[in-house]
Amino acid sequence: MQTPVFMPVGTLATVKAMTPQEVAALPASILLCNAYHLMLRPGSEIVARCGGLHRFMGWSGLILTDSGGFQIFSLRQLMRIDDQGVAFRSHVDGSAHTLDPERAMAVQAELGSDIAMVLDHCPPSDAPRDQVLDALQRTTRWAKRCVDQPRPAHQARFGIVQGGLDLDLRRQHIAQIVEVGFDGYALGGFSVGESPEQMAEALDAVAHLLPADRPRYLMGVGRAEDLVRAISAGIDMFDCVMPTRNARNGQLFTSRGRIVISNARFRDDPEPVDAACACPTCQTYSRAYLRHLYVCKEILYSRLATIHNLHYTVDLVRQARLAIAAGNFAEFERRFFAARVQDDE
Amino acid sequence: MQTPVFMPVGTLATVKAMTPQEVAALPASILLCNAYHLMLRPGSEIVARCGGLHRFMGWSGLILTDSGGFQIFSLRQLMRIDDQGVAFRSHVDGSAHTLDPERAMAVQAELGSDIAMVLDHCPPSDAPRDQVLDALQRTTRWAKRCVDQPRPAHQARFGIVQGGLDLDLRRQHIAQIVEVGFDGYALGGFSVGESPEQMAEALDAVAHLLPADRPRYLMGVGRAEDLVRAISAGIDMFDCVMPTRNARNGQLFTSRGRIVISNARFRDDPEPVDAACACPTCQTYSRAYLRHLYVCKEILYSRLATIHNLHYTVDLVRQARLAIAAGNFAEFERRFFAARVQDDE
Repeated sequence: MQTPVFMPVGTLATVKAMTPQEVAALPASILLCNAYHLMLRPGSEIVARCGGLHRFMGWSGLILTDSGGFQIFSLRQLMRIDDQGVAFRSHVDGSAHTLDPERAMAVQAELGSDIAMVLDHCPPSDAPRDQVLDALQRTTRWAKRCVDQPRPAHQARFGIVQGGLDLDLRRQHIAQIVEVGFDGYALGGFSVGESPEQMAEALDAVAHLLPADRPRYLMGVGRAEDLVRAISAGIDMFDCVMPTRNARNGQLFTSRGRIVISNARFRDDPEPVDAACACPTCQTYSRAYLRHLYVCKEILYSRLATIHNLHYTVDLVRQARLAIAAGNFAEFERRFFAARVQDDE
Repeated sequence: MQTPVFMPVGTLATVKAMTPQEVAALPASILLCNAYHLMLRPGSEIVARCGGLHRFMGWSGLILTDSGGFQIFSLRQLMRIDDQGVAFRSHVDGSAHTLDPERAMAVQAELGSDIAMVLDHCPPSDAPRDQVLDALQRTTRWAKRCVDQPRPAHQARFGIVQGGLDLDLRRQHIAQIVEVGFDGYALGGFSVGESPEQMAEALDAVAHLLPADRPRYLMGVGRAEDLVRAISAGIDMFDCVMPTRNARNGQLFTSRGRIVISNARFRDDPEPVDAACACPTCQTYSRAYLRHLYVCKEILYSRLATIHNLHYTVDLVRQARLAIAAGNFAEFERRFFAARVQDDE
């Protein structure tokens, strides 16, 4: 796996609107699936009976599975949390479930992912310091229990660092999680409401404290400007639903900024979304056609828009990688921000 | 164009959930779009400004456009009908529009389709005989006005025969429409509530009265059993939303009958939808995965299911063509019905 790399999100064992072949052609080499969601539907035991996640979804690349900690806490389905684990209600049907570090690793073992994430306790972003500290200490205790679980062959394990925007807590937690020892390290609890500048400053302060010889993964971040700044801070891996979700909602990414395809000015616009883009959507279809499909709520719109936004995002990170390899990342970063003149947001 | 042929339906300039490349790979050589729908969204003038329908939607095969008569009458938006034409409300926003034979042909000329259908007056299937007779005579007068319109280069024109299940009226109307003179002839007003046996009997009685040297097109029919019977009666062309719509609604076609993918027995079924099927869906994905995607309302489900059902339908008609060419259609028909043992309907 070459880094920095962006991982398209395939929460429910599908990158929404895409086939695995289309994801591979972006090109993407690794995607993210979600153990919490797959535990509820179709059930990790069903996936295991069908030969594991790769075979189930027809994807021959790498798969990272998130443990589901973030979902349990952010979907507000939490019933009870203590050192043993969490009890929560399914967001699908309200049924009661429990998850603890042991079960989180067992589920990911059943799924057969290439990288498993530890179960973490994500405190709310506005929690008082003592509650955050409590969550960090619990996350560290859970991280130790995760590494004590039997390790499936060929499955790597990543730890997760929390701590919000408190640099002191971040540094403390990095030290604890690095001491437990993992194949890679993730920063959780970013992009949860803070400003882009706040996140960039925090990353500049702490990302370099993560071991340089292991992948550094910034969870849930995918906005173009944030990706470039985070790569500058030393981040290697990203995932985010933004390219796919915004595509479906009508917002398309271009090198000059974002456009909203429903805008009336695209009604009879024969140009592609981005004349400089090499994606299959821009090679064939006009803004007028995409606008028509969007207005008519046609499935093909979601397909073509998703391909475009994912291609844009994957390619941006790829260009950053090439710039780093060529020793001119600073110039790449300068040009990237200089080109952004138009934003429909 | 080799016949018999099935035309996938791309009402709004997209075969729902499919790219043009996927439609071509079925393989399909001709698809149907709807002038009524495209007149309302995005507007035929927009399509013309974008280079015509083929370029707008990126399809290099043939396109037949239906005039919209059926939609205006069946969507119950009709406000007024007289010899001049029809006034109706848009099913999208309730706005008032008019359509007459001249405008119907002008819209299809703007769209630039390869085959244009005349505007017809479709009486309700339960209308009394004198009302049906009145509609037939108007359809004939409108057919004459359609052929009087300037004919775009390379655009063929098809007449439409109505008359419901009344064989006497059907024969009269065939004679009238054939006398007007068209490149092909369509039978409208079938598959609107009558039994499969009633339709098959009517087709056996009248299809052979249409000129043998011109394509005979049975509008809106696509159920596997109906296709085979209609081909037996001498029909050459078909269109129907059933393969695509039923796919999205969870009903999948197989040589043994139809299955409903949400059925719990498919929960951990590692087999493809139809082991005998050569479509991309059956080559890669299990029933368990398709069921999971369907239950989770994932877009990929609609894609994979649509590809499968269209492949099934196109291939059935192609197999019928090969059987006719080989002189053993009767044996093909016998085997087709003998194989159908399972139906989830």
